[in-house]
Amino acid sequence: MIFKTTPYRVYVYDTDVAGVVHHSNYLRYFEAGRIEFLRDLGFPYIDFQHDGIGFVPVNIDIHYHYPLREDDEYVVTVELIELKKASFIVKQTVQCNQKLNVSATIQLACVKEPEFKPQRLPDALLTQLR
Amino acid sequence: MIFKTTPYRVYVYDTDVAGVVHHSNYLRYFEAGRIEFLRDLGFPYIDFQHDGIGFVPVNIDIHYHYPLREDDEYVVTVELIELKKASFIVKQTVQCNQKLNVSATIQLACVKEPEFKPQRLPDALLTQLR
Amino acid sequence: MIFKTTPYRVYVYDTDVAGVVHHSNYLRYFEAGRIEFLRDLGFPYIDFQHDGIGFVPVNIDIHYHYPLREDDEYVVTVELIELKKASFIVKQTVQCNQKLNVSATIQLACVKEPEFKPQRLPDALLTQLR
Amino acid sequence: MIFKTTPYRVYVYDTDVAGVVHHSNYLRYFEAGRIEFLRDLGFPYIDFQHDGIGFVPVNIDIHYHYPLREDDEYVVTVELIELKKASFIVKQTVQCNQKLNVSATIQLACVKEPEFKPQRLPDALLTQLR
Repeated sequence: MIFKTTPYRVYVYDTDVAGVVHHSNYLRYFEAGRIEFLRDLGFPYIDFQHDGIGFVPVNIDIHYHYPLREDDEYVVTVELIELKKASFIVKQTVQCNQKLNVSATIQLACVKEPEFKPQRLPDALLTQLR
Repeated sequence: MIFKTTPYRVYVYDTDVAGVVHHSNYLRYFEAGRIEFLRDLGFPYIDFQHDGIGFVPVNIDIHYHYPLREDDEYVVTVELIELKKASFIVKQTVQCNQKLNVSATIQLACVKEPEFKPQRLPDALLTQLR
Repeated sequence: MIFKTTPYRVYVYDTDVAGVVHHSNYLRYFEAGRIEFLRDLGFPYIDFQHDGIGFVPVNIDIHYHYPLREDDEYVVTVELIELKKASFIVKQTVQCNQKLNVSATIQLACVKEPEFKPQRLPDALLTQLR
Repeated sequence: MIFKTTPYRVYVYDTDVAGVVHHSNYLRYFEAGRIEFLRDLGFPYIDFQHDGIGFVPVNIDIHYHYPLREDDEYVVTVELIELKKASFIVKQTVQCNQKLNVSATIQLACVKEPEFKPQRLPDALLTQLR
């Protein structure tokens, strides 16, 4: 099952002198997508955060296919592809007009913040993700 | 007395599609300048931060004179112009090749973080700023 | 007449170590608000951009009232308060749950990009703004 | 041969609510490192840019080992590991106090900007990189 966000707009502040979205910003778009994915599952990320728990990237393998530009409307997708006790892996894309802009495989670890100590994923979330 | 930072470089990620530094980024340059100003005074900001104390903008009046572009080298200046018990006002500029790019008058309040409760400025800093 | 955007969400990437939205990011929120204000008037900013025309800040006087935090939903308002031949002034706010977070008075100049040469505002826009 | 930048400082604006540098910002640090690597080789990136040529990421595989925090001083390294006619691959790291924070393998394509049309690498640069 692939989760898809509602559309977001590219504003000027996310572009660079090359006339496209700066490549670092897609990691931010992916993060927004994951937060909405969790909210959709019934697990708002902010609730974990209030308990000092975060899901932080350990590894990101990102492919840039086609750049977004000023005023483009894009959606972000999230697909869970692997679930472990203290981490999980998602595939994510950014798409605009059915066209694939960027894709990534992202491994996230569950940590205690702000110390960044590895943690087991919260049980309720583990159950739901299964 | 006007404090001046060592030079910083403009990298691509700070520019936008208009070919210049995005106007929001000068607030970041000013923040870096204030942090170096405090370090130069013998009061590294990070030490206040470890005590849960921050100096946060209450009001910024910023004038854009001439845009910075990719690869420009700029310096940031800081001049204290008013000192109160729980806040202070600085004049700051961003300059490149003796040319004024941006200037601002910035009022900063001393707060307890993360609650953002107003605080008296730490005594040692007050004395030094006087 | 005051224009108001649909709600935006604060994601982690816009926060800082103090636990709130970094103060520079409100300038980005204001920019998004102005772009939606123009779209609502029937003048998508991207159309001006394709003609090499931009509206860039000359002066921003910004007041920080109450910080936004992770996951807050905010709206941006735009109110035209002065219209000249080559520039205009807006009042803008960021609000969350009816509470005022940040307010600003922003003067924007019409320029030819990427040279940043001052320009008369396009006639059709001038007429509409009147 | 591994190129290493002079140190950069982490300022507040690069941190997030988790108390560390936001994971997207390392892509910006890597970009700065590549630009200084090219300058050191005698090929300032800005000169290519003025000719409408850019080197843009096609694929980034990034591993997060240990987060940077406010006020940390870090260096960025760049090592060329593969050179083709229209692209090249570098290994990059961000390090602080001899400790590895982030590492990445990054493939960059030479493109004509702003169209993003693939290009052969400029001959003089090809020769120098060999």
